[in-house]
Amino acid sequence: MGSSSNGVAVVDKSVDYANYFCTYALLYHQKEMLSDRVRMDAYYNAIFQNKHHFLGKAVLDVGTGSGILAIWSAQAGARKVYAVEATKMAEHARELVKTNGLEDVVEVIEGSMEDITLPEKVDVIISEWMGYFLLRESMFDSVICARDRWLRPNGVMYPSHARMWVAPIRYGLVDQKKIDYDRAMDDWSHFVNETKTFYAVDMGSLTKPFTDEQRKYYLHTSLWNNLHPNQVIGKPAVIKEIDCLTSSVNDILSLQANVSSVITAENTPFCGFGGWFDVHFRGREENPAKHEIELTTAPSEDFGTHWGQQVFLLHPSIRVSQGDNMTINFSMNRSKENHRLLENEDHDVIFRSVMANWRNATGVQGPLGKKFSLFCS
Amino acid sequence: MGSSSNGVAVVDKSVDYANYFCTYALLYHQKEMLSDRVRMDAYYNAIFQNKHHFLGKAVLDVGTGSGILAIWSAQAGARKVYAVEATKMAEHARELVKTNGLEDVVEVIEGSMEDITLPEKVDVIISEWMGYFLLRESMFDSVICARDRWLRPNGVMYPSHARMWVAPIRYGLVDQKKIDYDRAMDDWSHFVNETKTFYAVDMGSLTKPFTDEQRKYYLHTSLWNNLHPNQVIGKPAVIKEIDCLTSSVNDILSLQANVSSVITAENTPFCGFGGWFDVHFRGREENPAKHEIELTTAPSEDFGTHWGQQVFLLHPSIRVSQGDNMTINFSMNRSKENHRLLENEDHDVIFRSVMANWRNATGVQGPLGKKFSLFCS
Repeated sequence: MGSSSNGVAVVDKSVDYANYFCTYALLYHQKEMLSDRVRMDAYYNAIFQNKHHFLGKAVLDVGTGSGILAIWSAQAGARKVYAVEATKMAEHARELVKTNGLEDVVEVIEGSMEDITLPEKVDVIISEWMGYFLLRESMFDSVICARDRWLRPNGVMYPSHARMWVAPIRYGLVDQKKIDYDRAMDDWSHFVNETKTFYAVDMGSLTKPFTDEQRKYYLHTSLWNNLHPNQVIGKPAVIKEIDCLTSSVNDILSLQANVSSVITAENTPFCGFGGWFDVHFRGREENPAKHEIELTTAPSEDFGTHWGQQVFLLHPSIRVSQGDNMTINFSMNRSKENHRLLENEDHDVIFRSVMANWRNATGVQGPLGKKFSLFCS
Repeated sequence: MGSSSNGVAVVDKSVDYANYFCTYALLYHQKEMLSDRVRMDAYYNAIFQNKHHFLGKAVLDVGTGSGILAIWSAQAGARKVYAVEATKMAEHARELVKTNGLEDVVEVIEGSMEDITLPEKVDVIISEWMGYFLLRESMFDSVICARDRWLRPNGVMYPSHARMWVAPIRYGLVDQKKIDYDRAMDDWSHFVNETKTFYAVDMGSLTKPFTDEQRKYYLHTSLWNNLHPNQVIGKPAVIKEIDCLTSSVNDILSLQANVSSVITAENTPFCGFGGWFDVHFRGREENPAKHEIELTTAPSEDFGTHWGQQVFLLHPSIRVSQGDNMTINFSMNRSKENHRLLENEDHDVIFRSVMANWRNATGVQGPLGKKFSLFCS
């Protein structure tokens, strides 16, 4: 509620708990993340193939959840690990640390990163903070806060870098979305007629806002999907690069990218964009990783992740050909806080997911010189 | 956050908006309620068959939503209608009032009932406040608040009475729930083994809390369902009666009922209970309705409602016979506020629905002398 002086919106804590953290207090949800082999292998390899970063060091795990990264850090030889967790999951993490015999090294601290105090600065900050399409959930804010307060001058970030990608895609269900929308609007006409006939009330004045609401829901809201690589029909482009050591919250509040992509598939429908991210574990220049590890959430037949990809559809889709060039003008802005959603036009965000607090707007200059625009959340 | 002096928990408003009111700001959701013919017919008939309650009177509509009840009240001859709505839906209601030519009678007030002030007391308070199994959503609290502050001494409540019912049921999916639970636990075993094998971390200490979480989710959480009347296998029993004119918030904070039911179906599985409600529009003793209207959400082949019924399953189910008698000991308590869910064991509540803020505990003395107990939300 309200804004702090630097323009970063302040989130009301109780709302944040009700809407966001609650999910992370469920073991079911933790298990889902712990069963994501791509995610697990990346962090496991990043830690155990770079033990020199951990041996005898102080480590901070931001949002430890079940405590897995803290436990691995300790197993890799850390002298001390501070594992911070905002939810009651902290109790489970503490138990897990104990049954794995690491209670002398790992200290689980229940509290939000912004509030707690550590007895020392740390050599490593490790965190699995990435949300859908990287920045959903805005958890990186807490990592930045932790870094600015607790990382030693030569400390390293795990991961150290992050990138966001978009690529043109084909998507079989694009027509279905339009059919669903048309059906919803037919239902509405029927409803307006019935209400007039049976209850003597004219609902016609709500047709415009209902249309807007349904268009937003069916046509202009991005979707979670596990894309198959052959659905990607053009060259992926990087739209954002983040250096976890130096980025500020202001750097990630909004995103403007003007990139181009060339169509690589022959005579195919172009239905919109897929968006995904990757992160790298490289240490820092003065203290590099021995083995650089990559965690990518790009479309993959065999190595899908729980993050999947974010799909932004265009209506109508158009046909494109190999070699077609397109310019993609991508902009994305953090939306108002969830608890404010009733005061602007963001209600579809909650409609889709309580974790969504990003709003995207894309204008695409298509290969046929057409101008599309879409508005997604 | 915290409690007021009378023991009634105070809900943090921003949490309440994020979790509860947001849904009601969607026209899609309003349309669903406005398309419920049982609901619509009951209110329509209650108003237009009892015009004497409205003619020349001041009316307050608590939680007007799209404004339908306020509009009908005006059409039935009310002198003035105050239509209070906490969400942005108020704007749509105002538009609807205008296009139906009633802006001189209906005043839409955007605000929460507890905060706003009316220029006069009213003769009628009308509201569609009923949640799943009547008391979910706890919106009746706001109606009570409105009544105590704004109803004239001889004013009437629409509806005037409410009742909650339970009945023994059979339910085909009861075994599936157990199968789903068993599968979730098998998955967990597999997961614990894999994590030990591949990542050298023993997750065994989480097996107990994971089991509790999954039991609660699959076996001990009540379900929304539209029951077929032939799924009801015993005599329904009233477990709560509410006089809307006199009930206080304390009267609905908890519910204790000891009722009996006799099995009416021959040799059938007894799988648990169905719960539903009805409300009546009777006016008041000194100023009765001319035509009493009933709105029931009991299982019905032809007159189902969007409320459906709430199903509380027992595991395992048992066989019962016609004439078997059972004593049902039903207790239900309002849970802590949603924003506190992380501090107790209520996370399944949010897991199921952001609107749930009730917790039920039922002990059943079965016809075979067996003792079941279940804990539902």
